[in-house]
Amino acid sequence: EPPHGPEMVKNTNMRWRLPLVCLLWEVAMIVLFGVFVRFNPEADAHWEKEKSGRNLTSDLENEFYFRYPSFQDVHVMIFVGFGFLMTFLQRYGFGAVSFNFLLAAFGIQWALLMQGWFNSFQNGKILIGVENLINADFCVGSVCIAFGAVLGKTSPVQLLIMTLFQVTLYAVNEYILLNLLHVKDAGGSMTIHTFGAYFGLMVTGILYRPNLEQSKDKQGSVYHSDLFSMIGTLYLWMYWPSFNSAISNHGDGQHRAAINTYCSLASCVLTTVAFSSVLQKKGKLDMVHIQNATLAGGVALGTAAEMMLTPYGSLIVGFICGIVSTLGFVYLTPFLESKLCIQDTCGIHNLHALPGLIGGIVGAVTAAAATEGVYGKQGLIHAFDFTGDYKDRTPSVQGGYQAAGICVSLAMALVGGAIVGGILKLPFLGDPADENCFEDDVYWEVPEDEETGLYHMHDPAIKPVMP
Amino acid sequence: EPPHGPEMVKNTNMRWRLPLVCLLWEVAMIVLFGVFVRFNPEADAHWEKEKSGRNLTSDLENEFYFRYPSFQDVHVMIFVGFGFLMTFLQRYGFGAVSFNFLLAAFGIQWALLMQGWFNSFQNGKILIGVENLINADFCVGSVCIAFGAVLGKTSPVQLLIMTLFQVTLYAVNEYILLNLLHVKDAGGSMTIHTFGAYFGLMVTGILYRPNLEQSKDKQGSVYHSDLFSMIGTLYLWMYWPSFNSAISNHGDGQHRAAINTYCSLASCVLTTVAFSSVLQKKGKLDMVHIQNATLAGGVALGTAAEMMLTPYGSLIVGFICGIVSTLGFVYLTPFLESKLCIQDTCGIHNLHALPGLIGGIVGAVTAAAATEGVYGKQGLIHAFDFTGDYKDRTPSVQGGYQAAGICVSLAMALVGGAIVGGILKLPFLGDPADENCFEDDVYWEVPEDEETGLYHMHDPAIKPVMP
Amino acid sequence: EPPHGPEMVKNTNMRWRLPLVCLLWEVAMIVLFGVFVRFNPEADAHWEKEKSGRNLTSDLENEFYFRYPSFQDVHVMIFVGFGFLMTFLQRYGFGAVSFNFLLAAFGIQWALLMQGWFNSFQNGKILIGVENLINADFCVGSVCIAFGAVLGKTSPVQLLIMTLFQVTLYAVNEYILLNLLHVKDAGGSMTIHTFGAYFGLMVTGILYRPNLEQSKDKQGSVYHSDLFSMIGTLYLWMYWPSFNSAISNHGDGQHRAAINTYCSLASCVLTTVAFSSVLQKKGKLDMVHIQNATLAGGVALGTAAEMMLTPYGSLIVGFICGIVSTLGFVYLTPFLESKLCIQDTCGIHNLHALPGLIGGIVGAVTAAAATEGVYGKQGLIHAFDFTGDYKDRTPSVQGGYQAAGICVSLAMALVGGAIVGGILKLPFLGDPADENCFEDDVYWEVPEDEETGLYHMHDPAIKPVMP
Repeated sequence: EPPHGPEMVKNTNMRWRLPLVCLLWEVAMIVLFGVFVRFNPEADAHWEKEKSGRNLTSDLENEFYFRYPSFQDVHVMIFVGFGFLMTFLQRYGFGAVSFNFLLAAFGIQWALLMQGWFNSFQNGKILIGVENLINADFCVGSVCIAFGAVLGKTSPVQLLIMTLFQVTLYAVNEYILLNLLHVKDAGGSMTIHTFGAYFGLMVTGILYRPNLEQSKDKQGSVYHSDLFSMIGTLYLWMYWPSFNSAISNHGDGQHRAAINTYCSLASCVLTTVAFSSVLQKKGKLDMVHIQNATLAGGVALGTAAEMMLTPYGSLIVGFICGIVSTLGFVYLTPFLESKLCIQDTCGIHNLHALPGLIGGIVGAVTAAAATEGVYGKQGLIHAFDFTGDYKDRTPSVQGGYQAAGICVSLAMALVGGAIVGGILKLPFLGDPADENCFEDDVYWEVPEDEETGLYHMHDPAIKPVMP
Repeated sequence: EPPHGPEMVKNTNMRWRLPLVCLLWEVAMIVLFGVFVRFNPEADAHWEKEKSGRNLTSDLENEFYFRYPSFQDVHVMIFVGFGFLMTFLQRYGFGAVSFNFLLAAFGIQWALLMQGWFNSFQNGKILIGVENLINADFCVGSVCIAFGAVLGKTSPVQLLIMTLFQVTLYAVNEYILLNLLHVKDAGGSMTIHTFGAYFGLMVTGILYRPNLEQSKDKQGSVYHSDLFSMIGTLYLWMYWPSFNSAISNHGDGQHRAAINTYCSLASCVLTTVAFSSVLQKKGKLDMVHIQNATLAGGVALGTAAEMMLTPYGSLIVGFICGIVSTLGFVYLTPFLESKLCIQDTCGIHNLHALPGLIGGIVGAVTAAAATEGVYGKQGLIHAFDFTGDYKDRTPSVQGGYQAAGICVSLAMALVGGAIVGGILKLPFLGDPADENCFEDDVYWEVPEDEETGLYHMHDPAIKPVMP
Repeated sequence: EPPHGPEMVKNTNMRWRLPLVCLLWEVAMIVLFGVFVRFNPEADAHWEKEKSGRNLTSDLENEFYFRYPSFQDVHVMIFVGFGFLMTFLQRYGFGAVSFNFLLAAFGIQWALLMQGWFNSFQNGKILIGVENLINADFCVGSVCIAFGAVLGKTSPVQLLIMTLFQVTLYAVNEYILLNLLHVKDAGGSMTIHTFGAYFGLMVTGILYRPNLEQSKDKQGSVYHSDLFSMIGTLYLWMYWPSFNSAISNHGDGQHRAAINTYCSLASCVLTTVAFSSVLQKKGKLDMVHIQNATLAGGVALGTAAEMMLTPYGSLIVGFICGIVSTLGFVYLTPFLESKLCIQDTCGIHNLHALPGLIGGIVGAVTAAAATEGVYGKQGLIHAFDFTGDYKDRTPSVQGGYQAAGICVSLAMALVGGAIVGGILKLPFLGDPADENCFEDDVYWEVPEDEETGLYHMHDPAIKPVMP
C-alpha cells in the first residue's frame, strides 16, 4: 500500500467530513425545497383550472413534449458525457465518473433553487417544469467543466464546496446576462463554457502544486482508459445538437439550432484530425485531440446556433475551432502550466474556454448582422425577443450587449474562481498529497486484483525473465 | 483449462439443450403471434376508418409521439442498464450482458402475449402498440432483477425457464393489481421491483450452494469491470425519469412523474456517498454502493412518481432510500447469506426489494393523502382513474388497496419463486459446479489472450523477480 | 517499437497526406455549402410567411417533433453503434472508433450535398431540415458497413477517399430506386445494407492481401475489447426500431415500423444463440455471433418494416436471419477468404449483405401481397405513395419494381466497389504493411504503459517463473 513518508502529513480520510457535508447539505435542500419548490401548472394535477386558464387544447401542447427528449440527451451529456470523458487517466476512473456524478447530483438541486429564485419565482414559490430541469443540468455542466481542470487533485469535499459556490455564481451571472443585458445564449457559450472554464482555470491556478511531477507517471492514459473516454466524447458530440437546441424557441428555433450544431461539429472533426496529424513528427494521431478538440465546434455554437447562422457559417466556425483547440492542446496547455502555473488536467482551456469565447463573439456578430430581410419582421422580433422593454432594441445594439455578456462572464469567472480557489486551500478539506494525485486509491476501495495484478506491471520489481 | 475433479460430475455442455429450448420456444412464439397478435388501430395502415372513427385531427395525436421517446429510454435501461450493471464481476462480463440480452429478448415476446391476453384482447386478437412494447420491457425488467440474484450461478437454459415462468406470474400479478385492485403503479415499485426482487431472492435461496466459497476469488471486480458496470448504473440513473413516466397519463402526469423521479434520484446519490464513506474504516468509498444504492431513489418512486408527491417529498424518499440501500449492502447482504442461505450476487435485496417495498408504502400513503384541494376535483378523478366501477372510491380507500397490492406482490413473488426455484433444481439443466461459478469459460469461448495473458497474472506461479 | 524489415517499404507516415485531404475537402464543403445549402422553411426564422403559407396551426406540427428523437437514435447508431461494434480487435480500438468517427463526420457533409442535389433542390438551393440529417446519417451508415470489411487494413486517407466515392454512388443509387423505380426502402435494406455491404466486400476483394496471416495474432479480441464491442451491438439493437421508422410516414407508418422491427430483433436473438451453441463442439457460445448476428433481424426489416408485415411476419424474418447470419460466420466467412480472396474483417457479409438481400426480397413480397382489404383503399395509396405518376401502379407491379431495386443496388455496389477498390490501390495512400494490419500503433500515439505493460504479456520473453 502506497501511503508512506511525506503524504502522511495530509489527512485524506473522508470518514466524517464527506458524510457530514453530504447529509447536512441534502437536509438543507429538503428544507428549502419544502419551503419554496412546487410544480409549475403544466406538471400540476390541478389541470381543470389550467386547461381553461391557459387554453390547452390538447395534452400535446404540454411543454413536456417539446423539451423532454432534448432534456434526456442533455442529461446523458452531463453524467455519461462529462463523466466518461474524464476516465482517460489510468488510475482515476472511479473518481472521474463518480465524483462527477456526486457533484452533478448535488448541483442540480442547488441550481433548481438558485435559478428558480431568479427566474421562476411566483407568489413566494419556485414553480418548476421540464425547462427548469434542463437549466439545472446546464448549470451543472459548467461545474463539470471546472472539475476537468482540477481532476485528480482535489478531494470530494472540495468538489462539493466548489459546486456550491460555482452554481451560485452561475445563477447570478446568468441572471445578469439573460435578464439585465437581455442577451441570447441558449447553448451557453458564455454562461456555461466561458464562465465554467475560466472559473475552473482560476481555481486550479490558485491550487497550484509545484511538485506535481511526483505523480507524473499517473497523468497518462492506458489503452482501455482511452476507449472509455471515447464513450464520453461520442455522447457529447452526438447529443450536442440537443444541448444547443434544448431551450431554444419552439419550432423553427429548435430545428435550426440542431442543424447548425450538427454542421459545426462535423466540420470540427476534420480540422482536428488534420492538425493532430500535422503537429506530430511522424504524423500519428493523438487520442487526446480526438477526445476533446472534436467537440469545440459544439461549444462555439452555444450562442449562435438558434440564430440564422446558416449551415455554411456553422461549418466555418467548426473549421476554426478544431484548429484552435488542437493547437491549444499542443502549445497552450504546456505554456499555461510552465509559465502561468495553471495545471489544467483535461485541457478545458482548449475545449471550453477558447471555443466559448469564440462562440460568444460569433453570437455577437451574428446578432449584430441580423436583418429583417433574413428573419422577416416578426421573425426578428421573435428570434431575439424584441418585445416589452426591449421592443426598440436593434440588432446592432443587441450585438453590443452580447459582447458585454462575454466580458461579464469572464469577469465573474475570474473573480469568483479566485475567491473559491482561496476557500478550497483551507487545510482541513482533505486534498491528496502531490504524489497521490490522479490515484483512485486515496478515496476509493480499489479491487485487490488490480492492486496485486495489473498495477504491478509497472512495478520495476517485475522484470522479464531472460530465457 | 480449469475443469478437473469434482465438476466433472456436472455436465455444462449446452450444445443440444440450449438450441432446443431457444428454437422450440421461438417457434411457439411465432405460432402464438400468428394466431393472436395484430397491430392496434394507431399502428394499422387501415387509417381511413380510424381517422374518421377516432377523430384524429392530426397524426401528431398518435400515441407513438406521446410514448416513443420514453420507450427507447426504457429499452436502453433493460438492455444496457441492467446488462452492463452486472458486468462488475471480473470474469463474467460475457454472461452478464449476453444472458441478460437473451432472456430479455425472449421475455418481451412472451410478455407481449401474456400481458396482451389480460389487457389488450379484443375480438380474439391482441392488438399491440407502443404502450404494449413499454409494458413488455417493464415485465422483463423484473426478470432482469431476479437474474441479478442468481448471476453467475445458473445456466442459460435455467434462465430461459425462469423467464418463462416469471413473465407468466408477472402478468397475473399485474392483472390482479391493476385490474382487480385498481391500484396505480406506473413505474412498478410493486409489480416490477418488489415482485422481481423477492422472486429472485426466493429462487436463489432454493438454489443455495453451501460450497460457493470455492469460487470466492471470482466474485470480486477488477478495475475496468467496475467502470463497465458504471455505464449500466448511469444509464439506469439518467433514464429512470423516463421509466417512471413512460406509461403515466398524458401531459401533466408524465411531466410530474419525470420531475419527481429526477429529484429523488439526485437526493439518493448524496446519502449513498455519505453512508458509503462513513461505513468504511478509512472513509473510502465503495464502488458497489455507487453502482447500486444511487438507484434506489428511482425504484422507490415507482408508484408515487405520477402522484402529487411534490419535489421535496421526492427528495425525502431519495434521502431515505440511499441510506437504507447502502446499509443493506454492508449489513444485510452478509446476513442473508450466512443466516438465511440467500446468496444474492448483485445485492438486489438492497437495490430493488427494500426500495420497492418503500415505494409501495410511499405510494399508498400518497394516494391516501390525496385531496381535491391539491389535485382539483377533475384532477383527482383523472389521476386515480376514479371512473366507472371505481367512481365512488375515495383516496383513503385507494390507499388501502395500494397497501393490499404490496402484499399480493410479495405473496406472488415468494410462492412463485419457491416453485420456480424447485423447477430449476432439476438435474439436467446444466448449472455450473461451485468452483466454476462466476466464470465465463463454462458457457463461452473466451479469447485465448485472456486465458494465457491477463488471467495468468493471478497465477501464483508468476512471482515478481527480486532484483 | 515494431517497425523493422519488410514494412519499411510502406510509408505510413500521414503527416502531410492526411491533413491535406482533410483541410482541402473541408474547404470544398464550406464553399459548396455556401453556394447551395440553406434552411428549409420549417427551420427558417422567416416564419411569418411560412405560418400563413403552410397553415401551421402550431409549432408542434414542425417536422422537428416528428423526427428529432428518431434522428438522435440513428445518430447514436452511426457513431457509437458502428464505432464500438468494431472495437473488438485487441489492438485496433482507437482506429475502429476514431476512423469511423472521421469518415462519418466527413460523409454526412458530402451526403447532405449529394442527396440534396437529387432530392431537396429548389430554385438553385438545397433546403435542409431534420429529415436531411437523418438521410445523411443513413448514407454514411453504408460507408460504416463497408469500413467493417476493410477494418484494420487501410489508411485514413484511403478511408476518406472511399467515403467520397461511396457517398456519391449511394446518392445515385438511392435516386434511381426512390425516384425512378419509386420503390419503398425506408430502413435501407437495399440502399444501405445491400449496397454498403457488397460495395465493401468488392473493395476488400480488390485490396486482397495474400500474406495477411502475418498479422493473424492481432485479428482476435481480448476479454475487455469484446465488452466494448457489445456496447456497439446493444445500441444498434435497441435503436434499430428508430432506424427503420425514422423516415416512415407520420403516425401509423412510424408506429408500425417500430413494432415490426422490435419483434424481428427479439426473435433473431434466440436463433442466433441457438445456432452459435449448436455449431461449437462443446456447445459454447461465441461472442462474435452475439455481437453481430443478433442484429440481422433489423437489417432484414429495412424495406418491409413500414408495411403491414405484421408482428408474426416479423418474428419469422428475424428467426430466419439469425440462423443465416450465424451460419455465415461459421461457414461462409472462411470460404470467402480462402476461395474468393475476400477478407471480411467484421463479417459484414453475414450481418449486412445476406440479411440485406433477404430484406429486399421480403419487402418485394410484402409489397406484392398488399391488398385494399388489409390497408384500406386510402391506406394502400398512402403507404405506397400511389399518387401522381404512380396512381395506377398495383401492389404486384410495385413488388416487381422492389425486386428490380435489389438488382440495381447489387450492380451499383459491385461495379462501384471494383472501381473504388482499384483507386485505393494507388501506391501513395499510406496503407499498412501486412504485418502491421490491425495495429493502432501505425497511425496512433499509443499510451506508453500499454506498450511496455499489457502488450508485453504476449511477449514470449515473459515467462512464468517456476517456483
